[in-house]
Amino acid sequence: MAIVECVPNVSEGRRRDIVDSMINAVGRVRDVRLLDHSSDPSHNRSVLTMAGDPAAVKAAVLALFEVAVPAIDLRSHRGEHPRLGVVDVVPFVPIAGVTMAECVVLARETASDIAARFEVPVFLYEAAATTPARTNLEDIRRGEFEGLAEKMASAEWAPDFGPPRPHPTAGATVVGARMPLIAYNINLATDRLDVAKQIAAAIRHSSGGFRYVKAMGIALEDRGIVQVSMNLTNHEKTPIFRVFEAVTREAARYGVTVLESEIVGLVPAAALIGAAEYFLQLERFRADQVLETRLRDERE
Amino acid sequence: MAIVECVPNVSEGRRRDIVDSMINAVGRVRDVRLLDHSSDPSHNRSVLTMAGDPAAVKAAVLALFEVAVPAIDLRSHRGEHPRLGVVDVVPFVPIAGVTMAECVVLARETASDIAARFEVPVFLYEAAATTPARTNLEDIRRGEFEGLAEKMASAEWAPDFGPPRPHPTAGATVVGARMPLIAYNINLATDRLDVAKQIAAAIRHSSGGFRYVKAMGIALEDRGIVQVSMNLTNHEKTPIFRVFEAVTREAARYGVTVLESEIVGLVPAAALIGAAEYFLQLERFRADQVLETRLRDERE
Repeated sequence: MAIVECVPNVSEGRRRDIVDSMINAVGRVRDVRLLDHSSDPSHNRSVLTMAGDPAAVKAAVLALFEVAVPAIDLRSHRGEHPRLGVVDVVPFVPIAGVTMAECVVLARETASDIAARFEVPVFLYEAAATTPARTNLEDIRRGEFEGLAEKMASAEWAPDFGPPRPHPTAGATVVGARMPLIAYNINLATDRLDVAKQIAAAIRHSSGGFRYVKAMGIALEDRGIVQVSMNLTNHEKTPIFRVFEAVTREAARYGVTVLESEIVGLVPAAALIGAAEYFLQLERFRADQVLETRLRDERE
Repeated sequence: MAIVECVPNVSEGRRRDIVDSMINAVGRVRDVRLLDHSSDPSHNRSVLTMAGDPAAVKAAVLALFEVAVPAIDLRSHRGEHPRLGVVDVVPFVPIAGVTMAECVVLARETASDIAARFEVPVFLYEAAATTPARTNLEDIRRGEFEGLAEKMASAEWAPDFGPPRPHPTAGATVVGARMPLIAYNINLATDRLDVAKQIAAAIRHSSGGFRYVKAMGIALEDRGIVQVSMNLTNHEKTPIFRVFEAVTREAARYGVTVLESEIVGLVPAAALIGAAEYFLQLERFRADQVLETRLRDERE
């Protein structure tokens, strides 16, 4: 069985009853599980993390729209976080037994259904983007709901699906496909913040490092140590073990050792199994040798 | 959801129709999957590997008895492999979300049902054994089916469940709980067989090494290299990464490096994730951070 993760961001983080209705709507869909949800009142925004069978995840997104579109009116929505729509962003994430290309197809099908059923225009982003100008979420969202009618009046910002103008109360939705984010930190056995900052600069994409690494050096004041704090945005292409090895080598340059590392939040099993394969020098290993994978694949 | 593996050994490896009936019987049980099966005509024995929900695995074992007991008569059974019963051995193996103690309970419940429904006496072995004399399968099986009536006549060999005499055609069954076996090999970048043999001697339990390691050194003639060939009998107490590190260090003693390692057959995800935790120096990591584990736990 394939597993897709989906992390819809909704523009409601204050009214508990509406958030609960959305949670319940997702919970009623078979073969999908809500793994996490959090609401931020100052952002006035909620993030739902769900995962399961691809068709079920799509059904859960539509169930979420069913509740959110009539309940939330962006004309009166205020919050610190930028937003374009009631259901603002819907990323699909391949976890197991599914490719990125399949998640792009799923994103397009979901976008088509959203447009048809709710008359909400949809922009495709990241791996599902139809033009490089729409790869980055922030470029699509610039101007926010308040500037959307004017933005969409230009041919350049015709939506990928749905009407060529914003939904009056629900704005527009950005749907796409991306790899899972892994929040990964490496703590160093030193209090030298300059060392953490120099290592972060060496390994992050923006300053010449690995393509799928965002990193910064920070001090953990209460523990008297420093941390290389990272987001790994594509663990298949920039694997966790390669980042660990690089940080370890860079630290040695300063006579510093790695104290420990940590993963914050969820991680796909494949990212850790890949690390085991690397360090154990495993050859001829296939994912279906993992007993749990075999169980999933053979489930009807 | 908990996952238990079960690997029944049945005394029939020649008549395809009977083996197929057993496979079909297991296949009809919900929430259990047959992961593998193999039949050896010279042993006249078949091994079925199944896994799933604990109650479902128990139901599948009883379904297997339902087919095997009427179809197989040990009085006319001939084969090279020692055997005591039609369904000879039934080990339950904890894979995920279940403890060894729970597998022992499952073994006892299954044994009780086997005795009640089929009038087959059952001996408990390994982690489920009721006395140290019954820990090892070979001690229970010594004398085989042909010597069983005489053996059971002594109070020392009263069964743990069922009648105090063999079933006339089905003998007795040995039911128990054990950890999963991991077949793990490390190939060395040398053709020096003495090095592989000395490393195997250093790390195996029988000659003073790790408690849950069986090992021997063999030559891979066609590749011109040697191998430390191992069975890891408890990956929680003697983890795969510790064995890898020890072999790597011992090899360095002879100026030899590890070329690669390999896992033959199935491995629980936890054994590989444990290796990732070790090498990445992961701290504060919980199994429920693995996305797939969360999905399993939350499934209804």
